[in-house]
Amino acid sequence: MRAEILAVGTELLLGDILNTNAQYLARELAALGIEVYYQTVVGDNPKRLEETLYHAFSRADLVITTGGLGPTDDDLTKETAADYFGEKLVLDEKALEQIQVIFNRMGKEMTQNNRKQAFVPENNSVVMYNANGTAPGIIIEKNGKIIIMLPGPPKEVVPMFEKQAKPYLAKKQEDTFISRVLRVASVGESAMEAMVKDLIDAQSNPTIAPYAKEGEALLRITAKAKDEEEANRLIDPIAVALKARLGKSVYAEGETNMETEVAKLLLAQKKTIAVAESCTGGEIASQLVRYPGISEVFIEGCVTYSNEAKMKRLGVLAETLVTCGAVSKETAMEMAEGIAKTAGADIGIATTGVAGPEGGTEDKPVGLVYIGLYNKGTVEAKEFHFAGNRNKIRDRATFQALDWLRRKLQYEK
Amino acid sequence: MRAEILAVGTELLLGDILNTNAQYLARELAALGIEVYYQTVVGDNPKRLEETLYHAFSRADLVITTGGLGPTDDDLTKETAADYFGEKLVLDEKALEQIQVIFNRMGKEMTQNNRKQAFVPENNSVVMYNANGTAPGIIIEKNGKIIIMLPGPPKEVVPMFEKQAKPYLAKKQEDTFISRVLRVASVGESAMEAMVKDLIDAQSNPTIAPYAKEGEALLRITAKAKDEEEANRLIDPIAVALKARLGKSVYAEGETNMETEVAKLLLAQKKTIAVAESCTGGEIASQLVRYPGISEVFIEGCVTYSNEAKMKRLGVLAETLVTCGAVSKETAMEMAEGIAKTAGADIGIATTGVAGPEGGTEDKPVGLVYIGLYNKGTVEAKEFHFAGNRNKIRDRATFQALDWLRRKLQYEK
Repeated sequence: MRAEILAVGTELLLGDILNTNAQYLARELAALGIEVYYQTVVGDNPKRLEETLYHAFSRADLVITTGGLGPTDDDLTKETAADYFGEKLVLDEKALEQIQVIFNRMGKEMTQNNRKQAFVPENNSVVMYNANGTAPGIIIEKNGKIIIMLPGPPKEVVPMFEKQAKPYLAKKQEDTFISRVLRVASVGESAMEAMVKDLIDAQSNPTIAPYAKEGEALLRITAKAKDEEEANRLIDPIAVALKARLGKSVYAEGETNMETEVAKLLLAQKKTIAVAESCTGGEIASQLVRYPGISEVFIEGCVTYSNEAKMKRLGVLAETLVTCGAVSKETAMEMAEGIAKTAGADIGIATTGVAGPEGGTEDKPVGLVYIGLYNKGTVEAKEFHFAGNRNKIRDRATFQALDWLRRKLQYEK
Repeated sequence: MRAEILAVGTELLLGDILNTNAQYLARELAALGIEVYYQTVVGDNPKRLEETLYHAFSRADLVITTGGLGPTDDDLTKETAADYFGEKLVLDEKALEQIQVIFNRMGKEMTQNNRKQAFVPENNSVVMYNANGTAPGIIIEKNGKIIIMLPGPPKEVVPMFEKQAKPYLAKKQEDTFISRVLRVASVGESAMEAMVKDLIDAQSNPTIAPYAKEGEALLRITAKAKDEEEANRLIDPIAVALKARLGKSVYAEGETNMETEVAKLLLAQKKTIAVAESCTGGEIASQLVRYPGISEVFIEGCVTYSNEAKMKRLGVLAETLVTCGAVSKETAMEMAEGIAKTAGADIGIATTGVAGPEGGTEDKPVGLVYIGLYNKGTVEAKEFHFAGNRNKIRDRATFQALDWLRRKLQYEK
């Protein structure tokens, strides 16, 4: 099956919004083994929309549209598609009820033109009721052609595709494509690729694809199989081989992130933590606090930007600051121990560095960061050199601090 | 002039990357007064690329492409365009030198296939040398049709378009379109729109367009004029009228954000600040610390998540915590005063609230946040109710805290 993704909306042509739906749908279709040759964006213009839809069906079996299902006269996706398929639009009582539910939830009066959204093709179609907005989605299938019409807002598109359109399409595909992602920390994408290149090259099913995300590298293992069980049977040994090669750098599988994994480990091991931050300026605390329920283990954080704060809040010695400097291994260690002890926490983590753009010297250049870690009575510090601008340096220091802690918790219990 | 945006790259069709270039270019073309009717994405496939380019020129005078200028055999945008225009590709020595410079900078050997990138059309073209990557951009103009070929990576696209393609296009446009953005805090988009609706409706040049961004609302005033000076003459009185209507809610003009404006005010007024955060968990500190040079005024922050930390670090009274609770106006005030006094800062700002998803009660539901502000010996607190999930609530509390401080600094000096 060959597909085309068609986004309808003048706001996209004006650059007012970013077409994230196209990326989401492209990725989902690739995972289903459905080829996409073109993506198109067209405005809310009846003639151009019609031409584009006909053109799309001249080269594709499946067209997935986003947008143009709203209540105004501008919104014409459904009308244009019904014309193409020669279907009449009729009122769907359940769709109307659903729209009413959404209006009730918002505490607003339903207007007359919202009734338009409850009209659906009389035959050859499936209505995808919308729990997150007023526009129902619609599938029409006829004469070997399929159109799947989704609303515009991503928060409506994603659940509707996931729960309704994807199962519809999966049934038509002989094979299913199942992916598993390994998340790799503190190894760059190209270094990671070099470490597993022979494994990547040796594989055709599952395939292994490396890619980079801010601060981490990912490996996506994708198996083509009859069902999920068979796919997992194909993926399991590859995942084991990759993990054996990459060792402790593989920090998790699937959709997650470093702060979530660290928070989970802290909660599972019932270890309390306190954070002392200089160059990261509250980012470590802020990321950990994203995790609901973290208050059970997160005692407190101190953003000790000034030397005074480092001494007063954490007990860093004046002598250390004078002799070694605020950005030093020694200060990082005293900060980590100081925050753990003053907070009464099991673990103390600390950062001090030169985030720039000013303040770098030959000895201590921009990008130099020391991370201190106090755990079970011992304290250590590591030196890092990060590239990038002020905020990249802060982000990288935050990630490295959390990754170091993750390794401790995971492997040195 | 009518334009079409054409992105070339299989990675877009697979959903591996997001097409941010299309949004950027769409917005820039709209600002130049150039209409865009279609955006298309096509893979690295010679036949489909050729068809798409010919189709685009059948309905547009100007085609802007991104991608497909790389060194591999897959990269065919330049070759396809040269064919369309009947132009021969020849080696451009300066382009070759530039590519060599980029390789030297990366400390890598230039490979033979990178020479391909230095070939440009012999006639009717302009080479846009690339300071940020190996692929030069190219403009071909012939027989009333223009193609502007840009590389793929946004960090190369934006400066090349801005410095080279945009001036080329601006010269062809009789009128120029100049925009000014007013940033409005703590008033929702629809409330803002209602406040200035008559002004919006009364205007045709400049136009006034409201739109929403996370946590703030924007008003874009766009004038069509012969030059920037005339545009500004048209915009000035409208900006004045809008500001008179919206008052202190207008916190800045142009590309900026709340933390930048607050940081600038603190530095200009030489006022030192310290932050005590409970529910925002370090986010206020982290945002302020984004601003380079903030260390002159930012003394420290405390993420006092536990009651113990609130008492020990900030001197919040045990009695207050017992009688009023950790989430209360009284606690917020004691936190704000406590952090200012213990840090020796002019200003203390504090947050305490229920970020959820757990921990809400009938009296103190999820979303309830108190913000405390200590300034010049007086302390106040305000109660807020924020909607959304845990992270939205934290983001909104952070924004409101900074906005309150901004109003103080701007209007109560």
